[in-house]
Amino acid sequence: MEKKEREVEEEEQVVNPWEVSGKDGAKIDYDKLIDKFGCQRLDEPLVRLVERLTSRPAHVFLRRGVFFAHRDLNEILDCYERGQKFYLYTGRGPSSEALHLGHLVPFMFTKYLQDAFKVPLVIQLTDDEKCMWKNLTVEESHRLARENAKDIIACGFDITRTFIFSDFDYVGGAFYKNMVRVAKCVTFNKVVGIFGFTGEDHIGKISFPPVQAVPSFPSSFPHLFSDKSDLRCLIPCAIDQDPYFRMTRDVAPRIGHHKPALIESSFFPALQGESGKMSASDPNSAIYVTDSAKDIKNKVNRYAFSGGQDSIENHRKYGANLEVDIPFKYLSFFLDDDAELEHIRKEYGAGRMLTGEVKKRLIEVLTELVERHRKARAAVTDEMVDAFMAVRPLPHMFD
Amino acid sequence: MEKKEREVEEEEQVVNPWEVSGKDGAKIDYDKLIDKFGCQRLDEPLVRLVERLTSRPAHVFLRRGVFFAHRDLNEILDCYERGQKFYLYTGRGPSSEALHLGHLVPFMFTKYLQDAFKVPLVIQLTDDEKCMWKNLTVEESHRLARENAKDIIACGFDITRTFIFSDFDYVGGAFYKNMVRVAKCVTFNKVVGIFGFTGEDHIGKISFPPVQAVPSFPSSFPHLFSDKSDLRCLIPCAIDQDPYFRMTRDVAPRIGHHKPALIESSFFPALQGESGKMSASDPNSAIYVTDSAKDIKNKVNRYAFSGGQDSIENHRKYGANLEVDIPFKYLSFFLDDDAELEHIRKEYGAGRMLTGEVKKRLIEVLTELVERHRKARAAVTDEMVDAFMAVRPLPHMFD
Repeated sequence: MEKKEREVEEEEQVVNPWEVSGKDGAKIDYDKLIDKFGCQRLDEPLVRLVERLTSRPAHVFLRRGVFFAHRDLNEILDCYERGQKFYLYTGRGPSSEALHLGHLVPFMFTKYLQDAFKVPLVIQLTDDEKCMWKNLTVEESHRLARENAKDIIACGFDITRTFIFSDFDYVGGAFYKNMVRVAKCVTFNKVVGIFGFTGEDHIGKISFPPVQAVPSFPSSFPHLFSDKSDLRCLIPCAIDQDPYFRMTRDVAPRIGHHKPALIESSFFPALQGESGKMSASDPNSAIYVTDSAKDIKNKVNRYAFSGGQDSIENHRKYGANLEVDIPFKYLSFFLDDDAELEHIRKEYGAGRMLTGEVKKRLIEVLTELVERHRKARAAVTDEMVDAFMAVRPLPHMFD
Repeated sequence: MEKKEREVEEEEQVVNPWEVSGKDGAKIDYDKLIDKFGCQRLDEPLVRLVERLTSRPAHVFLRRGVFFAHRDLNEILDCYERGQKFYLYTGRGPSSEALHLGHLVPFMFTKYLQDAFKVPLVIQLTDDEKCMWKNLTVEESHRLARENAKDIIACGFDITRTFIFSDFDYVGGAFYKNMVRVAKCVTFNKVVGIFGFTGEDHIGKISFPPVQAVPSFPSSFPHLFSDKSDLRCLIPCAIDQDPYFRMTRDVAPRIGHHKPALIESSFFPALQGESGKMSASDPNSAIYVTDSAKDIKNKVNRYAFSGGQDSIENHRKYGANLEVDIPFKYLSFFLDDDAELEHIRKEYGAGRMLTGEVKKRLIEVLTELVERHRKARAAVTDEMVDAFMAVRPLPHMFD
């Protein structure tokens, strides 16, 4: 019975680390996802608590519900209030040269968390994963890890509190010991249940979940946390990564560690609409950080799905459907000014503002964002990458 | 049909890395094993070729057929004759504190090969494997690896040509990259076929075969072989390890490496008889390198299965059954003197020599062997272990 229900649900929408798709091409139902995964909704009181503890307004992504779900965030915050710091862990699978805006979302948010809480951060580049899933060579995925590190560094992370590592460089020693400890606790049947592996999958895939699990444990980073084995971990990530950390949280207490806490985002939608994540295989589905001002203008004007009506007359009469309107959705991610966003919501929703005007504003916002990123990335030297990726103590990581 | 035949055969005798047992408690049928595994018999002409190439008599274990099977040894020797050196790779799973004589066999033989061919040697201590299979903690199996390294070093390896490593210390970097390359080529169904894993096995076990595979590739040891990516590898091991290297040989050409060659031994029998390997769970089934002279005398006299007849009269009349006689078998491993062994074979087999006399000679031989080992091991300092296990170039490894 339970199995049948699960099958029916899987037909409706699929969200896992390798596939995100809504029911029949519809939007992802995030409420259902919270129920299915068993995580908690990130509600208003928790956002207020973050603001109080950090003495600064919540990040746009937090106050507008981009990060909408969590596991044990309340516990991390309670501990923090009692003077116990934590560390942040996030990551990226380096499958492509250029990042798009969706890729930046967790890093922009993680930078905010690092600044606001003044805590250390580890960033895992899973070049081993991408080598195994995308059929990239070891050399190519390792190279992409370093290239992607430049984009990540360009987000403004504090080098005195940040350690970036590639799995091909860093797996070994204490990290590998923890991989073995985790792997001992998880059967093949279990990973089949969590990740849907089959007997035809290669054993590299089956070996990988412990690699993504163990940065959740401070003992995996002896150069950082050798005297802090009790430190808690908070993971900002998109909700499709939840299966890895469900497994991790299941194993953690059995090997003497705290369960990592999670703060989980919805997906940044494709230009064509909100049924899933953006696709690397279709360059017109996303704005890339390498896009020129002209590219951005062209993509937004040509491809951004509009909730406006099909004639000016109808638009003035019925207003835009903001539920499906991509320009408005993108502005809700990247337009900081709450008052201006509210103004657009009202005017556009009532039909007094036209899609063209909203797109124009979005083009300005994105062009500025991408231009700022491009400048920051151009300033990231190979020496800086080496410095962020050096296995080193961070004596000021809690300052 | 094929499956049925396989099942029948498996009922007859089982030989894999975790189980060795003959049909109905009988001796292992090594001829059948060669057929089943698809390796080659190590025949007389090949032994002669080894003698010619090394300008020294073949090791006892070679001329008496202890090492009885191989894969591509002829190819390695042909290349060697044309001036292409190779390297040796062997290993041990550190599951217990004290080694028994059966554990020494591959190391004694590997030392001979190293001396005779003047080639480098890597010795893998699979502390990760034992942690996962034996339910040892990471710390305990890592500690046992170092303890076992002392016994291995005591076998007399040349530090200028030998690198010993524990997986917990060494996995990472180029080694880990090769693990990923191998894992990508092997499906779960494939390891089920080779190793008999099931869905209830933990993913640590499923992840392990690539760890044992990759020391077969010179690129796993960049500090040793960075300019020798084409170097061939010869693996001396007991034949129960063949499944790992069947998998390795299958994968090797797909990732740009030579297939490793193998030279494979039969099992050193238990004191109680020749149906399998010695058992760590029964201390009276084996002579340990930590046994005192009194222990050895007691174990041989009380437990060594005798092929002698039940009365002196019958013994004089029928002679000893050398096929099942453990004292004679042990002497054939450790009594160097061919003439003396031949004398015992004739006299004991004809009933002119009694079991007591043969056991007395065996006790002398083993006591001397164990005493020599004990002295050598006592001289192995922690600094020597560090030196053998240091990740370092070996500039004189082919001298």
